[in-house]
Amino acid sequence: MHDLASRILTGEVRAAARVLRLIDDRSATGVQVLKDLFPHTGRAHILGVTGNPGAGKSTLTDRLIEAYRKQDKKIGVIAVDPSSPYSGGAILGDRIRMMRHAVDPQVFIRSVATRGHLGGLSRSARDMVRVMDAWGADVVIVETVGVGQDELEITRTAHTTLVVMAPGMGDEVQAIKAGLMETADVFAINKADREGADSTMRDVELMISLGKESLIALGKQKGHVVHGASAAAEASAHGISSANASTVEEAWTPPIHKCVAVAGKGIDELVAAITLHHRWTLETESGRLRRRRRLGEEVRESLREALIEAATNALHEELDAAVLAVEAKELDPYAAIENLVKKFLERA
Amino acid sequence: MHDLASRILTGEVRAAARVLRLIDDRSATGVQVLKDLFPHTGRAHILGVTGNPGAGKSTLTDRLIEAYRKQDKKIGVIAVDPSSPYSGGAILGDRIRMMRHAVDPQVFIRSVATRGHLGGLSRSARDMVRVMDAWGADVVIVETVGVGQDELEITRTAHTTLVVMAPGMGDEVQAIKAGLMETADVFAINKADREGADSTMRDVELMISLGKESLIALGKQKGHVVHGASAAAEASAHGISSANASTVEEAWTPPIHKCVAVAGKGIDELVAAITLHHRWTLETESGRLRRRRRLGEEVRESLREALIEAATNALHEELDAAVLAVEAKELDPYAAIENLVKKFLERA
Repeated sequence: MHDLASRILTGEVRAAARVLRLIDDRSATGVQVLKDLFPHTGRAHILGVTGNPGAGKSTLTDRLIEAYRKQDKKIGVIAVDPSSPYSGGAILGDRIRMMRHAVDPQVFIRSVATRGHLGGLSRSARDMVRVMDAWGADVVIVETVGVGQDELEITRTAHTTLVVMAPGMGDEVQAIKAGLMETADVFAINKADREGADSTMRDVELMISLGKESLIALGKQKGHVVHGASAAAEASAHGISSANASTVEEAWTPPIHKCVAVAGKGIDELVAAITLHHRWTLETESGRLRRRRRLGEEVRESLREALIEAATNALHEELDAAVLAVEAKELDPYAAIENLVKKFLERA
Repeated sequence: MHDLASRILTGEVRAAARVLRLIDDRSATGVQVLKDLFPHTGRAHILGVTGNPGAGKSTLTDRLIEAYRKQDKKIGVIAVDPSSPYSGGAILGDRIRMMRHAVDPQVFIRSVATRGHLGGLSRSARDMVRVMDAWGADVVIVETVGVGQDELEITRTAHTTLVVMAPGMGDEVQAIKAGLMETADVFAINKADREGADSTMRDVELMISLGKESLIALGKQKGHVVHGASAAAEASAHGISSANASTVEEAWTPPIHKCVAVAGKGIDELVAAITLHHRWTLETESGRLRRRRRLGEEVRESLREALIEAATNALHEELDAAVLAVEAKELDPYAAIENLVKKFLERA
């Protein structure tokens, strides 16, 4: 076992931070340490926290850390930033509050930028989660800012996804919410002291009931993988009939909790709901099936990245030549790809 | 040439719509038609319209269509929706206004969902653009709702990216803007009659001036591909010294235009700026270099998708077995991928 791996397993923060940097640089040592750590992972509860901009995710995450620390739990936090050359990877203003926990040796906070991840952002996030898990975190919180497909991918690395909403968002934002609905396990209506909280709550209730129906319908369509919270849909995606009573009884319906994160109100109830969902993933057949399916997605995604890396290395000159030929309209891009794949496989 | 391809080339909307459905289903006929059409593409100006939720992108797109129609131009519109089982692919409320143009035979509007694109959303968008281009569109507008990485990818398929902003957005939204800054060629400050428009304008000016510096700095770092609007950075990414005077003189600095889309104010100036940028992409060396680089990105992306498809077909059973072994902790996911890649290449 690599020295860094043993030091992480004894709970040394500095060793863990060092390995996170190695992973970021895609060093071979980083991969070696991840291999060494892997048998010692799987204990942490991975909690995704997501939602629209302005919903108050960072303030709520701060409160969740506080609540877990009262339970004497060791916490890892991965804050995903929509950073760019302009923000330079600095922690966003909203997250300053959360940083009060950074002095606590039982809390390990790291920020990751959405840009520049050669192997894909969700792979980086997964590797970071594994390091924090091996370091001894009881809960790893992955907080994503933003509402894109990338963020949805990351929530799929979590065991439990908490979607944070706030009253009084516009029409378009409402539509984006729809994408989040499918990965939601628990809802928080934050800023619940504001006008419109009840109406937001009713909207979510309606979406959940509509969603159950459409997820089940989608799950029945062959070839569709349903990324949903409905156990019936999950089972259906695995070819288990939704008419099977024991499976349907295991169904998880996402609970909705009102809270006011800035005032610390409603947090304990929310933590209880999150913990209950964690038990669902561990103790029910539907929960276990979901864990397995997500692992399968991870393996496929990593395979994709490994293949393009091998092909890019093998085909460097041919790739450039193909681009020039397509530019000159001597070759169409579809035929160009067919040729490149053929050449790569012949050479390998 | 396939019958559908010839019919598209004569400007038949029904044939074009039919092929878009074939592409969506990933039918072999769809690919055949795309191959046939390819030599007849490259004439249309591809305009990406993006920005934060609530900035008024759809209303502005509606006005842009109107302005181009006054110039007697034929228009294609691809509206990218963050749809889900919940919205079922329906046009968003915001886009209803735009649909008044759908009855105009010289306007071809199609909506595409961000979900369920096996080959990737930006590939689908690119194929749709090609069909509209071959159909005879002078301008193809690709409007994306949302702010994720996926949307940024799509803007890279455009020749010109218009970033729409509005005064009075929050802190977090401001941060997300940063990601958009890098792909922006022209800025519109919409709702400019509202309070805060001048302050938003100053923010954008500051970001542009900061961005130029950091893009140039980034471009000098070996191995970094800079997705920026600065011609100097573009040239630098291609190994052309930014000290080369003729290249620097070609630099494009994104102009900022105030408008009030709902009242139709400021639209003509905006269209003029967009047209000027189109000329920049055609008539300068920097513009041509960018076109070639984006074509290169397309080829790489398509290669990635083709490889994973081939590997998934070849490795079906081994993939499932690997997932189970990783789940049982008999194998770590990193070694599992190494084995799978090796098996795929041996078999091919």
